[in-house]
Amino acid sequence: MPIITLTTDFGLADPYVGQVKGVLLSLCPQARLVDLSHHIPPQDLRVAAVVLSSSVVHFPGDAIHLAVVDPGVGTSRRAIVVRADGRTYVAPDNGLLSGIIRSAGKVRCRAIANQEYLSPRISPTFHGRDVFAWAAGHLAAGLDPSELGPSVKDPLVLDWPPPVLKNGSIKGRVLFADRFGNLVTDIPARLILENPATGAPEIRIGDKVLKGLHLTYAEAEPGRLLALIGSFDHLEIARNLGRADEEPGLCPGAEVEVRL
Amino acid sequence: MPIITLTTDFGLADPYVGQVKGVLLSLCPQARLVDLSHHIPPQDLRVAAVVLSSSVVHFPGDAIHLAVVDPGVGTSRRAIVVRADGRTYVAPDNGLLSGIIRSAGKVRCRAIANQEYLSPRISPTFHGRDVFAWAAGHLAAGLDPSELGPSVKDPLVLDWPPPVLKNGSIKGRVLFADRFGNLVTDIPARLILENPATGAPEIRIGDKVLKGLHLTYAEAEPGRLLALIGSFDHLEIARNLGRADEEPGLCPGAEVEVRL
Amino acid sequence: MPIITLTTDFGLADPYVGQVKGVLLSLCPQARLVDLSHHIPPQDLRVAAVVLSSSVVHFPGDAIHLAVVDPGVGTSRRAIVVRADGRTYVAPDNGLLSGIIRSAGKVRCRAIANQEYLSPRISPTFHGRDVFAWAAGHLAAGLDPSELGPSVKDPLVLDWPPPVLKNGSIKGRVLFADRFGNLVTDIPARLILENPATGAPEIRIGDKVLKGLHLTYAEAEPGRLLALIGSFDHLEIARNLGRADEEPGLCPGAEVEVRL
Repeated sequence: MPIITLTTDFGLADPYVGQVKGVLLSLCPQARLVDLSHHIPPQDLRVAAVVLSSSVVHFPGDAIHLAVVDPGVGTSRRAIVVRADGRTYVAPDNGLLSGIIRSAGKVRCRAIANQEYLSPRISPTFHGRDVFAWAAGHLAAGLDPSELGPSVKDPLVLDWPPPVLKNGSIKGRVLFADRFGNLVTDIPARLILENPATGAPEIRIGDKVLKGLHLTYAEAEPGRLLALIGSFDHLEIARNLGRADEEPGLCPGAEVEVRL
Repeated sequence: MPIITLTTDFGLADPYVGQVKGVLLSLCPQARLVDLSHHIPPQDLRVAAVVLSSSVVHFPGDAIHLAVVDPGVGTSRRAIVVRADGRTYVAPDNGLLSGIIRSAGKVRCRAIANQEYLSPRISPTFHGRDVFAWAAGHLAAGLDPSELGPSVKDPLVLDWPPPVLKNGSIKGRVLFADRFGNLVTDIPARLILENPATGAPEIRIGDKVLKGLHLTYAEAEPGRLLALIGSFDHLEIARNLGRADEEPGLCPGAEVEVRL
Repeated sequence: MPIITLTTDFGLADPYVGQVKGVLLSLCPQARLVDLSHHIPPQDLRVAAVVLSSSVVHFPGDAIHLAVVDPGVGTSRRAIVVRADGRTYVAPDNGLLSGIIRSAGKVRCRAIANQEYLSPRISPTFHGRDVFAWAAGHLAAGLDPSELGPSVKDPLVLDWPPPVLKNGSIKGRVLFADRFGNLVTDIPARLILENPATGAPEIRIGDKVLKGLHLTYAEAEPGRLLALIGSFDHLEIARNLGRADEEPGLCPGAEVEVRL
């Protein structure tokens, strides 16, 4: 029973996701479908990338990860299948998979081009259903990626410079606020934990200075801001029993600095 | 593994949809459940109908389509099973299936009346769970529709006049805005494509005049309104890299005219 | 094919629920996953409890019910598996299961403590994924609850005093408004129906007095407030073809009195 995960900016109000699932189950009736998120901010490749890369590790290695955030739908941007570190991804070739491609040990990439495996009628506005779902459904049913199209040597890799440690300081930014108002940053836990501070690190965001990393929300006094490694395994700014994103200036895009 | 699709106005915040699924899986443990939408505007039969009719084509023919938008729940309106063009629908007899019944070549309709196949305890406010889900679950498990109740010769068909071409002009209206702010109209692609314009058609909505049909969102300049055939296979008013529904007067109910 | 239901306050915008499902399917590939609600108001144990207890009856008895509303995540509060009246629950030991434990005939409770069955790396902020989903996945795959940890004699049972009949009057309060603006109260149908009024009961909420219980929304005139036994099998204040929660003072927390 192959697993297919879905990550899109389609939302759940419209039947777009349901139609994608209809195609997937038509092509691979035994597939198990798991929604990662359909509420990626419209056309926000960066958030889609973080959602995807932080989630795939919780799935079996042979799961297929379908990700469609596609502002250029219907244009000449390619559609691709990527095998990276043993995992399989189906996505537009628009940079969504940048992080996965850059950090993977071994990457193979194919264009999705063979009309034989795509919808006989392709809507220029809905490749998620008529191109990507068809490819993912066939792959789940056992098709070899090489059947879908020619090898791609140069998948688009966007320049999303990962935060780095420089002069004892890591500078990053807030990517998004989650359901609880926690501000998820682009600073991976690894970068902080591999570079232990002499004493507690200091986290600066807006005009706030937070001392040290907490382990849990409940460690801080109720209503106080805190910094911790959150569920995405990234640095997160949160408020115990409240929302961090209600503080002026603490919002997506805000700069964050960790002084070690 | 029978597929059951679900279309309701129940939303996802409450456990109503989950309870419906509990009933479906209790009666047919191997059923595959796919949500089309649970965010139909409360009690909006017209939107439910469009969501349903535009989606069923993406599912195997033997899928069962459960649709519950039911302002008259608990009153004497009937519950029905409809077989139309080989597909199976379970819904209240309140006009939700009007379009499907009107356009189908062959229609058979049964009342859902046999208490033997319904919940032993029927909440007057939740037939979705205690009547419709029970019927759909039994059908998925192999029950013949004739077991559910007597034949119905006169299912309710509402007078939703489809837009027509008259004097070189098609007049319709906006049904709803999708997640991206695209305005989906009641004008099917077919009506435009079967009546090709001499030159580019002109689309009027509010005080806007849009020239020609585009193929993709990205064809228009960023921020510009455009008209195209969208993912519902209907005429759609959109804005490249923006929301069309932020323009004053461009909202559900607005009149749209296509001059061919 | 074991069923696992999910009740959380995680929302659906973030990939938290998807990651939980990845764990569940990794441990029990044949499990059927059903969302009850992921929109419990953040950290609202009381609403989670009502959603859970009103829903489990619609599932097969051997379903596993995973419920994670967990303001104390990462602290010393225990994680537990509860068997109550033949049903299985996995939840934090924070009172979420109070009602189920209090009303069940027979209750057995185990701590989730055996590291062997938990994630090798437990995020202090996401026990839903790394502790509760691991326990539920193993249980669905056949693990006996006794393998998870020692017996717990004193699961936390919060003092949520159920409404009682006193001097011909039942006093309760509004728990939440559902998707349709119906106000669901903490007064179970049973309490009213077992104590029939001499004449129609009178329901008071805010400065409103409603006469009698209706059976369906459509019984009241369009736009009029009414009281009825709703889909949760609790007393509900509603408005036919409208929202009851738009009336000033009719909101979660509001006191409700039934005079029999």
